[in-house]
Amino acid sequence: MLNTAGPLMNANKVRVQDTFWNRFTELVRDTVIPYQWQALNDEIPDAEPSHAIRNFRIAAGLEEGEFGGFIFQDSDLAKWLEAVGYSLAATPNPALEEMADDIIDVIGKAQHKNGYINTYFTLKEPGKTWTNLYEAHELYCAGHMMEAAVAYYDATGKRKLLDIVCKFADHIETVFGPQHGQIRGYDGHQQIELALVKLSQATGEERYLKLAQFFIDERGADPNFFIEECKQREGYSYWTGKQEPIPTVQQMAYNQADKPVREQDKAMGHSVRAVYMYTAMADLARLTGDQELLAACRRLWENTTKKQIYITGGIGATHHGEAFTFDYDLPNDTVYAETCASIGLIFFAQRMLLAEAKSDYADVMERALYNNVIGSMSQDGKHYFYVNPLEVWPKASDMNPGRRHVKAVRQKWFGCSCCPPNVARLLSSLNSYVYTSSPAENTIYMHLFIGSEANFTLAAGEVAFTQQSSLPWKGEVRLEFTAAPASAITLALRIPSWSRGQAVLTINNVKTEYETLNGYAMVNRQWMPGDTAQWELALDAQLITAHPQIRVNAGKIAIERGPIVYCLEEVDNGTPLAVVSLDYTKGLTSQFDANFLGGAVIVEAEGLADETTTWEEDTPYRPLTLQSETKKVKLKAVPYYLWGNRGEGEMTVWIRKSMA
Amino acid sequence: MLNTAGPLMNANKVRVQDTFWNRFTELVRDTVIPYQWQALNDEIPDAEPSHAIRNFRIAAGLEEGEFGGFIFQDSDLAKWLEAVGYSLAATPNPALEEMADDIIDVIGKAQHKNGYINTYFTLKEPGKTWTNLYEAHELYCAGHMMEAAVAYYDATGKRKLLDIVCKFADHIETVFGPQHGQIRGYDGHQQIELALVKLSQATGEERYLKLAQFFIDERGADPNFFIEECKQREGYSYWTGKQEPIPTVQQMAYNQADKPVREQDKAMGHSVRAVYMYTAMADLARLTGDQELLAACRRLWENTTKKQIYITGGIGATHHGEAFTFDYDLPNDTVYAETCASIGLIFFAQRMLLAEAKSDYADVMERALYNNVIGSMSQDGKHYFYVNPLEVWPKASDMNPGRRHVKAVRQKWFGCSCCPPNVARLLSSLNSYVYTSSPAENTIYMHLFIGSEANFTLAAGEVAFTQQSSLPWKGEVRLEFTAAPASAITLALRIPSWSRGQAVLTINNVKTEYETLNGYAMVNRQWMPGDTAQWELALDAQLITAHPQIRVNAGKIAIERGPIVYCLEEVDNGTPLAVVSLDYTKGLTSQFDANFLGGAVIVEAEGLADETTTWEEDTPYRPLTLQSETKKVKLKAVPYYLWGNRGEGEMTVWIRKSMA
Repeated sequence: MLNTAGPLMNANKVRVQDTFWNRFTELVRDTVIPYQWQALNDEIPDAEPSHAIRNFRIAAGLEEGEFGGFIFQDSDLAKWLEAVGYSLAATPNPALEEMADDIIDVIGKAQHKNGYINTYFTLKEPGKTWTNLYEAHELYCAGHMMEAAVAYYDATGKRKLLDIVCKFADHIETVFGPQHGQIRGYDGHQQIELALVKLSQATGEERYLKLAQFFIDERGADPNFFIEECKQREGYSYWTGKQEPIPTVQQMAYNQADKPVREQDKAMGHSVRAVYMYTAMADLARLTGDQELLAACRRLWENTTKKQIYITGGIGATHHGEAFTFDYDLPNDTVYAETCASIGLIFFAQRMLLAEAKSDYADVMERALYNNVIGSMSQDGKHYFYVNPLEVWPKASDMNPGRRHVKAVRQKWFGCSCCPPNVARLLSSLNSYVYTSSPAENTIYMHLFIGSEANFTLAAGEVAFTQQSSLPWKGEVRLEFTAAPASAITLALRIPSWSRGQAVLTINNVKTEYETLNGYAMVNRQWMPGDTAQWELALDAQLITAHPQIRVNAGKIAIERGPIVYCLEEVDNGTPLAVVSLDYTKGLTSQFDANFLGGAVIVEAEGLADETTTWEEDTPYRPLTLQSETKKVKLKAVPYYLWGNRGEGEMTVWIRKSMA
Repeated sequence: MLNTAGPLMNANKVRVQDTFWNRFTELVRDTVIPYQWQALNDEIPDAEPSHAIRNFRIAAGLEEGEFGGFIFQDSDLAKWLEAVGYSLAATPNPALEEMADDIIDVIGKAQHKNGYINTYFTLKEPGKTWTNLYEAHELYCAGHMMEAAVAYYDATGKRKLLDIVCKFADHIETVFGPQHGQIRGYDGHQQIELALVKLSQATGEERYLKLAQFFIDERGADPNFFIEECKQREGYSYWTGKQEPIPTVQQMAYNQADKPVREQDKAMGHSVRAVYMYTAMADLARLTGDQELLAACRRLWENTTKKQIYITGGIGATHHGEAFTFDYDLPNDTVYAETCASIGLIFFAQRMLLAEAKSDYADVMERALYNNVIGSMSQDGKHYFYVNPLEVWPKASDMNPGRRHVKAVRQKWFGCSCCPPNVARLLSSLNSYVYTSSPAENTIYMHLFIGSEANFTLAAGEVAFTQQSSLPWKGEVRLEFTAAPASAITLALRIPSWSRGQAVLTINNVKTEYETLNGYAMVNRQWMPGDTAQWELALDAQLITAHPQIRVNAGKIAIERGPIVYCLEEVDNGTPLAVVSLDYTKGLTSQFDANFLGGAVIVEAEGLADETTTWEEDTPYRPLTLQSETKKVKLKAVPYYLWGNRGEGEMTVWIRKSMA
């Protein structure tokens, strides 16, 4: 059943005000955005230069020089601008807005007469536009600029960038399509599809939605566009600089173009491409009522989030192609779990929540957000993980080439720096992920427990309330209404999977029963200004096991507490970390430590440490009978998102299970 | 203390006659050698062509065509010829000898007037000989031909190939050296060093030993030869076909040329290169009395066999560069453990045993031989593993690119087919590894328990005995003397580490006490023809743990029984194999099964299987509290060397440890 009555909430109508999250949004506003501005301007000492702004200035004729960076470098600036838009929406900042306006002027100057924007093709291969969609990311960069324009317009009301990207979109619409002389193709890296949906919604232009649908419908159709395009180029590859064999249809799975999207049922290929595409598919299914497309979205959601997801909300098991591998193959040490992929998964979850309100989507969204995504950024906002491992041995990251992609410490900036600006734009638009509403059904869904002031326009009238949340450390959430219509409306409160159904509702201090639907407590009543609703969720540390098909986690357990996944670090538990095991028969104790990296609940457990002192250096293997007793130890587990903030050391999420 | 009094035993004087090993030597003689002949002639359907013989025929002017295969393809033919030599020594075979003579004629025709042999440079880059030692394997191929020549001469007394390689060696001696106009360098892939030692011993030519020593002494000296050579070529790389950055001294660790060999103390870089070099170093240390070189050998032995070895005797933890990584980094699933590397380790062990008789060398030799090496070959002798994993999930080998080098089934032949002919030459020269002797000290060391007829010439006179061995299934070994001198000699019987010192000596049916030295029972007496010595070794299944620094094996145990390492296979224990654990508090039962792949002892254990039935497909993670009881199961472990002979399936050597 399509929830077509529930459009995307305007982000301006929800304002995050939350003890836990303010720290992140302030960090993004005060540190990350300025820092990334420096990075985009190549001003970070000892970090790889970005070239992104310089490329635009050269293309605009404001500077002399050559194109630098990746072929898709433009997108980094776009993602930064998008983050700026969200940030300005939350907190006006004239100086920042002026910086943004200035660079938007530069973008306008770099735009071709026909609307085309791409500094790589402008500067390096002017005659080659639209000849290598398979590799060149032109539409991907276009999409990011569209998302930036929508965000900036929403925040400031300024149309300049929006007009720039509309002109570009109009140009793209003439170039791509089923008509003779048009390119019947699509981009090698999906992104423009979801951006065109946003642009359509921001401008009211149905044409942009249709163009998004064209790209989605064409993808994977026979004959395969990429293969035909490669033949046209005689196999010339941008990446290798020479002729390569024409790829096979099977190889197109890397770009999710091996078969039509409606026939896909397993998450395959490059994981960021995949989830960006699924996001657009869910948008289109919802907005066009396409049941077949929605069914494909559900299948791909199930496969991604039930068989190919890490407990941290990471996806993509291999760095070879930054890709999915296959069901239940989730190695903790050679893992990829790219930050951008988890962000794309959050987009996908959000769109599925708009299509159908089921708490499973929000459970996964919350898992990815509180663990993989915020864990990718250092506490100072200036260092990032691109790969988010569940097990780290720094020496192996250094000396075993198969683990070299797994960094043991967050890096300053990356040559291919997709992840840091992606984190910035997600965290600065967090308000979009907390609620959805169905105006026609007079229903407000609360998906995330994040303190906020929220306003909704339902059929019955205006609703306003504040949410106060003690998450992630405690399970108490409190709503207070400041405006409500004169008739009954439904407040749908998510019952998170980690509460195991133990969720108590108290309205105006009276404990109240409720009915549940798809994982939400459905509370239908006439609310009055001043009414309060308390939502108390069981939030305690739990031991978690993995599906037996996930072979690497056999005999191991992880610790979760509410939405937070925990890990053991060498700094607390010694080395080698693998010698300790957790006694699952004993309880876990949780305690808030205000001094721990900005304040966090630490979980302690009883454990055993294998005896190591009687091992001689020259004995790699010996009979078990020689092993002495294990000794009892206290284990200290810390939130996964905080790992690696206290120097370099071993880390593990999955811990061997033992019994004293 | 150098055991300079103990030269290499002449292989012709030991004849293997052993229930367990005859099967392998017959397989090599009757199947492997003919099959590899077909392979070298490109006659195996559906396998990658070798080109090796065709290259020689073209170079000899007997055929038209172009060079094919790897730049070091010549070595495959050389290794085959070497195996033929050993096989003919054990079992005359006129037809095989004729085939060998014919191809030796071809090799002679392919030899340049100045002695040079290499079909790649003859056919493809005639003007470029000796310009790319770093990459081109010219001396490596030369070394293999020398080893073949020595083996063939020893077996047949025919000098033709020996004369060919001596002419080649004489040429090399003019090209390489410290004199002006000579190349002060060495090969990118060590091998000629150990071959020149053999050639020196076979011909009595001290010059060849000196040339080996030159190569060893120069290696890693400053300025670095490879770097200087790369500069000369302006960075041109054979492998990439273009100019590459000049490598750094650190990168020379891949070729063990980052520092002089006497300063090396960790096994680094390409593992086959490393152990071939260590072998030559041990030869030279022994033959020249070079204590500094022997000390380096001891250090490198310690590091390789105490910190960088798998329980199966495999070495080399990564497929990136087929290389060592660092101490205790021994992943079971992304492992390399190349067959050739274990064979090279056996060479190294043999040379160390000749330098100083310590049972540790033989323990490691035996471990590599009975597990990694013979496990690399299928029961039909026609399929091989290049990589010898300790944990296999066939689907991951297929679909996770980081594990694609780990094949789940043995392959027919490899484009780079170094391993199969290496196995053939080792197994057909097994007689060289059973004993060493010190004629001056009238001592015979028995290192391996392999049925054989052996003759030794000691200072005191001739000794002859037969060994009957019930290994690896039982621990009873029996010697019967057929000739002995009139004075006392010492029989040194190895006390294998797996016997935990429980080794009972019975002479002429009388239990006899003995003294031990360096892991050997030293039995000094005057033996008479007809005397018997029984050597009873405790040989029972044991549970083994790994050093706590080997993180991947934490909480796991392996099963060993005598020299044989065991594993669990899916065909016997179900899937996922990871759900089972072994109850270490219960006993192991061993039973010989005559019908199991030619007969083998199977080990059974009590185990637990994690409950899998209550897991829904759509639940990747769930609280431990929902987990049902484990159920008791019988585990069936089979010898590692026999894994993968009953279809494709999961396999593991290391098993989770549990307690019911």
